[in-house]
Amino acid sequence: MVKRKAVVLLSGGLDSTTTLAIAKSEGFEPYALTFRYGQSHAAEVSAAREVAAAYVVAEHVVVDIDLRTFGGSALTSDDLEVPKGRSAAVLTAEVNEVLTAEVNEVIPITYVPARNTIFLSFALAWAEVLGAEHIFIGVNALDYCGYPDCRPEYIEAFVTMANLATRAGVENSQRLQIHTPLISLSKAEIVSKGIALGVDYGMTVTCYVASPTGQGCGECDACQPRLRGFRENGLADPAEYVA
Amino acid sequence: MVKRKAVVLLSGGLDSTTTLAIAKSEGFEPYALTFRYGQSHAAEVSAAREVAAAYVVAEHVVVDIDLRTFGGSALTSDDLEVPKGRSAAVLTAEVNEVLTAEVNEVIPITYVPARNTIFLSFALAWAEVLGAEHIFIGVNALDYCGYPDCRPEYIEAFVTMANLATRAGVENSQRLQIHTPLISLSKAEIVSKGIALGVDYGMTVTCYVASPTGQGCGECDACQPRLRGFRENGLADPAEYVA
Repeated sequence: MVKRKAVVLLSGGLDSTTTLAIAKSEGFEPYALTFRYGQSHAAEVSAAREVAAAYVVAEHVVVDIDLRTFGGSALTSDDLEVPKGRSAAVLTAEVNEVLTAEVNEVIPITYVPARNTIFLSFALAWAEVLGAEHIFIGVNALDYCGYPDCRPEYIEAFVTMANLATRAGVENSQRLQIHTPLISLSKAEIVSKGIALGVDYGMTVTCYVASPTGQGCGECDACQPRLRGFRENGLADPAEYVA
Repeated sequence: MVKRKAVVLLSGGLDSTTTLAIAKSEGFEPYALTFRYGQSHAAEVSAAREVAAAYVVAEHVVVDIDLRTFGGSALTSDDLEVPKGRSAAVLTAEVNEVLTAEVNEVIPITYVPARNTIFLSFALAWAEVLGAEHIFIGVNALDYCGYPDCRPEYIEAFVTMANLATRAGVENSQRLQIHTPLISLSKAEIVSKGIALGVDYGMTVTCYVASPTGQGCGECDACQPRLRGFRENGLADPAEYVA
């Protein structure tokens, strides 16, 4: 039986690595797509290479795009500072706000303008060239997210647009599906699922301000939920953190 | 009165230059966005710089993205040849097919997978950073187009997706509009409109296989409709062509 090709967006972090493991466990042939987009945590890209090799993906492409050209996010700007040391209570309050109210002022400063739209557009281009009908993305509407482009209604609208955009969609020979296996999971549930699939999270880098060798700060809005996710599973995070 | 900011996609060709002239004539403050995407006709980018300077845009950004990573189009691949010397009859037959049947096998080999989706995604990112509600794109559903991502229903689906993707859309403080002033015009009508606005088409480069100094071949699927557009207006095309 021919495996179904799938483009998997792979940042090298906990979520995208778990997503790759899920795609593989569901019998897809993964084509991993990573972006070097001027993020200050470039150790992610090295992690992505390690993860792609470990999962023996059909192909791994690293695309260079410079989102710093436009600025506007603490992840890509030298002028804005990544928030650190915010307590779990603050983060949880934000999450609750996100879930109860419309997504509003709580959209964090680490949001990169139109990032997922850009990433999915490249994934769409590659999927079309490959003749792949499947894209996997590790977006997650709960937990620390709060980014508008992580929500199911956004993903659905992207699929509608994509099927009008491409030769394959128009010819009806191929209809795009975007898989978001983590979209309604908590960080603890993601960790639990990955562990069950044998993911080695020691390879992954999540921290927004990781050291060049991939050590996490343990304090930023990316590290805190990750560490909590492991704690809630009664596990130690195998990734490295600065002392 | 504060001018409304607009991101204008500017390739340096006839259509996008006319679009910029229209945006300016409608009182928008243009921010020009050009892509160096591995196209073989890189003289376009020089033309875009010249056009942006002539129109005194608020800012001109040239973004490097390498669509050759994925291949799949004659415009970005060294292995596929750009069709040349196809007669107007063939081109017209294709156009009629596009208009009467669903867009199907006539989608030309020069179609770049998901190109407009990628371009609009970057425009969206910049618009969000600028606080701009307007994007101008010179897509054209008639004439030699036949690309699925030039159709009005595609553009509408992109807007729907974009307003779900961005902080501004979600906060309802800003709703994106995509302007496609050329979408239903013939090439002759585009030329006529541009001439009325005083566009100097000598600056523009349209040819798929332009020489490094911007001379057109006069024969490809981009040159032929352009030359016809001038002829139908009883005008000579001021751009340079190889003898």
